[in-house]
Amino acid sequence: MKRKVKVKVTKEIEDEIEQAIKQLGLSPKLEGAVLYTLKLPGKRLRPRFVMASARDFNVDEDIAIKVACATEMMHAGSLIHDDLPAIDNDDYRRGQPSNHVAFGEDIAIMAGDLLFSVADYMCTKSKSNDVIKAFTQTLIELVDGETRDIIMSKKGYKPSEAEILQMYRGKTGALFAFSFSFGPLMAGIDPSSYREAGYEFGTYFQIRDDILDVTATFEQIGKTPKKDLKENKATIVKIMGVTQAQKFAEDIRDGILSKVKKGFLYDEIEKMLLDKK
Amino acid sequence: MKRKVKVKVTKEIEDEIEQAIKQLGLSPKLEGAVLYTLKLPGKRLRPRFVMASARDFNVDEDIAIKVACATEMMHAGSLIHDDLPAIDNDDYRRGQPSNHVAFGEDIAIMAGDLLFSVADYMCTKSKSNDVIKAFTQTLIELVDGETRDIIMSKKGYKPSEAEILQMYRGKTGALFAFSFSFGPLMAGIDPSSYREAGYEFGTYFQIRDDILDVTATFEQIGKTPKKDLKENKATIVKIMGVTQAQKFAEDIRDGILSKVKKGFLYDEIEKMLLDKK
Repeated sequence: MKRKVKVKVTKEIEDEIEQAIKQLGLSPKLEGAVLYTLKLPGKRLRPRFVMASARDFNVDEDIAIKVACATEMMHAGSLIHDDLPAIDNDDYRRGQPSNHVAFGEDIAIMAGDLLFSVADYMCTKSKSNDVIKAFTQTLIELVDGETRDIIMSKKGYKPSEAEILQMYRGKTGALFAFSFSFGPLMAGIDPSSYREAGYEFGTYFQIRDDILDVTATFEQIGKTPKKDLKENKATIVKIMGVTQAQKFAEDIRDGILSKVKKGFLYDEIEKMLLDKK
Repeated sequence: MKRKVKVKVTKEIEDEIEQAIKQLGLSPKLEGAVLYTLKLPGKRLRPRFVMASARDFNVDEDIAIKVACATEMMHAGSLIHDDLPAIDNDDYRRGQPSNHVAFGEDIAIMAGDLLFSVADYMCTKSKSNDVIKAFTQTLIELVDGETRDIIMSKKGYKPSEAEILQMYRGKTGALFAFSFSFGPLMAGIDPSSYREAGYEFGTYFQIRDDILDVTATFEQIGKTPKKDLKENKATIVKIMGVTQAQKFAEDIRDGILSKVKKGFLYDEIEKMLLDKK
């Protein structure tokens, strides 16, 4: 019998994540490093979207929770590697010392690797080959997007708008595309419209972040502000300026909800978009 | 109709790997970095074991090749991350500059991440939930083993023999355990004896490598010799000395073949063991 999926599941997801990690029997230091980043305060956006999408398509709750955890694990792994000295070199994440500051660079590299592998492992619990395939492809897109970001941010590189938008779709969009389309994937329904909505949500989200990097304080964003600007990071804000980027983001935002049927996911996306205005 | 699996498939595997990577549409720099390490000369041990194990259990060749590629990709990803400055800090791998020396530390971190994700993606082509689950668990074991290695090699840590052997089983044994047991897993047969043989093969292999670190030249091993010794790496050789470690390894070696039925895998393991004597 299928249980109905609740949308408000942040605590349940966090408990499930902790339990899943503790069951692995990792070396205590690795377990500590992995849980440290997983437990940083956050909105658990991706798991919430997975759960809402699951509810819209009557997916079994036990399966949905595993996959929701998987998305948060993949996200956490990518944050740890992004913050590394060789990459974004950020000492703070969500107001706390970043993983390599707390545990050392070697352990942080391993913690990211571990999170990627546990994410894929958790996703196998869906027992859906379509879902597992889409999830592993998501990590490929995410890593490729992050690499494009690294390359475009090197001195002397002048990225085009199209290149930056492609990078956003991989780096930030892909995991939302997966989260939005989880329900359709499990139900055997064409997920392409949901996927596109996810890419656009990610792009909107990323542009809003890039704007905040320029306009916000440390207290507001929990990490070093104006860092992207100082470090020549490739952002759409740098090409368009804040006002134009804001307008551009709003245009993207206004198209997202038309791609998703009314329901729990729709409501959840709408709430997040209002939150991010 | 099932095609029979050939055991001599090194060239076929290498071509398939290259094709699989090129199909992903990665940013050219990431594709280059990933192919660089995948193309380093090597014995392709793990893919050969996968193919032999597949042949013993009548697994479809097309599926076996994908999974064989997946094992080589996982292995290559782990080599790139192991060599990083923050971890083993090795500038050479198989006689060539290691990935971070050739492409930079940032790209090397991403190349390892990418290889892990493509490995899991390739493995989904088996369409066997048991196989995909076992494969993702293998990466968890591998990363945990590598982390134990890092921790035990820190100044002041005095690892026990048991701790070192546990580390070897994860770091080196787990992927052989998967490769050996691929055929039984696909055939729905209890893989535990094959898995154990793989862990022991990995342990034997690792001890032989540790002995070579102490006794061989750069030309013989394609990387800096006596590096483990200098850097306080936790090895069984350091605890037992070369002669005793050699004896210990031989005892392990002599038990491996009894755990695998006569056939292609048996022959392949035997050949490798003679090669490594």
